[in-house]
Amino acid sequence: MSGEQDVAAVRERVEEALDRWIPPARTHPARLHEAMRYSALGGGKRVRPILVHAGGRAMGANPGRLDGPACAVELIHVYSLIHDDLPAMDDDDLRRGKPTCHKAFDEAMAILAGDAMQALAFQILATDPDMIPNPERRLRMTELLARAAGSRGMAGGQAIDLAAVGRVLDIAQLEDMHVHKTGALIRASVLLGGLSADAPDEGRLEQLDRFAKSVGLAFQIRDDILDEEGDTETLGKAQGADRALNKPTYPALIGLEASREEARALVERALSAIEDFGPEADLLRWIARYIVERMN
Amino acid sequence: MSGEQDVAAVRERVEEALDRWIPPARTHPARLHEAMRYSALGGGKRVRPILVHAGGRAMGANPGRLDGPACAVELIHVYSLIHDDLPAMDDDDLRRGKPTCHKAFDEAMAILAGDAMQALAFQILATDPDMIPNPERRLRMTELLARAAGSRGMAGGQAIDLAAVGRVLDIAQLEDMHVHKTGALIRASVLLGGLSADAPDEGRLEQLDRFAKSVGLAFQIRDDILDEEGDTETLGKAQGADRALNKPTYPALIGLEASREEARALVERALSAIEDFGPEADLLRWIARYIVERMN
Repeated sequence: MSGEQDVAAVRERVEEALDRWIPPARTHPARLHEAMRYSALGGGKRVRPILVHAGGRAMGANPGRLDGPACAVELIHVYSLIHDDLPAMDDDDLRRGKPTCHKAFDEAMAILAGDAMQALAFQILATDPDMIPNPERRLRMTELLARAAGSRGMAGGQAIDLAAVGRVLDIAQLEDMHVHKTGALIRASVLLGGLSADAPDEGRLEQLDRFAKSVGLAFQIRDDILDEEGDTETLGKAQGADRALNKPTYPALIGLEASREEARALVERALSAIEDFGPEADLLRWIARYIVERMN
Repeated sequence: MSGEQDVAAVRERVEEALDRWIPPARTHPARLHEAMRYSALGGGKRVRPILVHAGGRAMGANPGRLDGPACAVELIHVYSLIHDDLPAMDDDDLRRGKPTCHKAFDEAMAILAGDAMQALAFQILATDPDMIPNPERRLRMTELLARAAGSRGMAGGQAIDLAAVGRVLDIAQLEDMHVHKTGALIRASVLLGGLSADAPDEGRLEQLDRFAKSVGLAFQIRDDILDEEGDTETLGKAQGADRALNKPTYPALIGLEASREEARALVERALSAIEDFGPEADLLRWIARYIVERMN
């Protein structure tokens, strides 16, 4: 199977799993479930679920065990997008090519839909009958996701981001922001996959973590580049939105060409972290390259 | 020890435990941790932590095992207050006698502080070294808290609440709103306590749940009554705020005296659910009475 087909298959099974986990739109309270389904289903690159599956495959995990953690990280990611898009945060009208949640519903419903998604993510890790049954492992996965989502992880990164608007950051500060804002959840994704194997080797998990660290930063640099050079239609969100908000970006700090160079170097570093893995890590390798070559 | 002393001791230990769990105000990102500490520490009736301790004691749990779940439910509760107070929701300026989080900080920080608190609650259940070590039990507790906080629990209740503003509800609809909005977390509190016992009897947990169901509704009716008759200073929030928002309340639907009667009847029902418990359930009995007699 090619990388594209492989990834399309993962997207499909994650979409189906999310559809099963989020209550039907008619379930009381209906409007809240509609808002959750509107934002979580039918779109998105599903980079984090793909990383869960790729990390799991690299460690020999049964694919059926990976849909639960894949849904959990994606729900955390989608809730963060909903909240980040709010008027009090980035004030975006467009996401994944359609109106943002607070535009399609209202601000209150968008806040609540995000809140409920975070709770659902942890409910999945605690209850999914298809995940690895070992309860200690599940608690470790719960800890990993909670830390990645929390004040020292993704939510903290968004706070750093907001504090940075209109300020001049140096590269170290910009990197610190991204390590929290996107890096933490990307690392958690790969590791949640790895932790779904029957008896994951700690040394190999450590290698996966180094892979994910570099890939996470490369992903963010590519995002900054796309914000500069992409067009609104391809991106599914307003082009130049970050620059318009006067947000610090890699291209603004070091220029477009050096940013591309840095992203490529990070992907090479990611690949070398898992170079002794066999073909079971090919999806990880594919997604690393996809991340710097993607157009949206 | 009297009920008051007992409850004061629980409040103190929960305050200390929250202080340990929430990163210090200087920890990066500092502003986010300041906002979390501002809202979670130094105030609040701590009804849910007290219910955790009371439910745990009734089942013979070691008190040291109860601070973790007590912090977890309180963090979920505090995050919901922060989000409910936002301009897009109830738009409140005052909470626990001081400016609401988005007034003291800003809206974005209030959203993020709430988000990070929810993650921290699950991190505690996954990692607290003092909680019951049994990992299956901890997963069951995680499931319980996640369901209570999610779209079919507290977040769902807030969505029902928002949809009800300005509409005429009947008693069944009002009860449905409260069962979700406050009832779910109050039930979870008592059960998280009970589940912290070494080998909790399922029949007794069932009794605790019936107790908590009645107490949760009584608590909300008392809240509605206080909103009508309390003064702003005692309440620590604006008096008549719910009526001003044209929110449905028990006094508005059935009158003040019938509301008082209903709250008292619910407490009696709660007490009868645990009538065969011994003196180990005295704190539960105390808190049930406190809930209908409290002045704020």
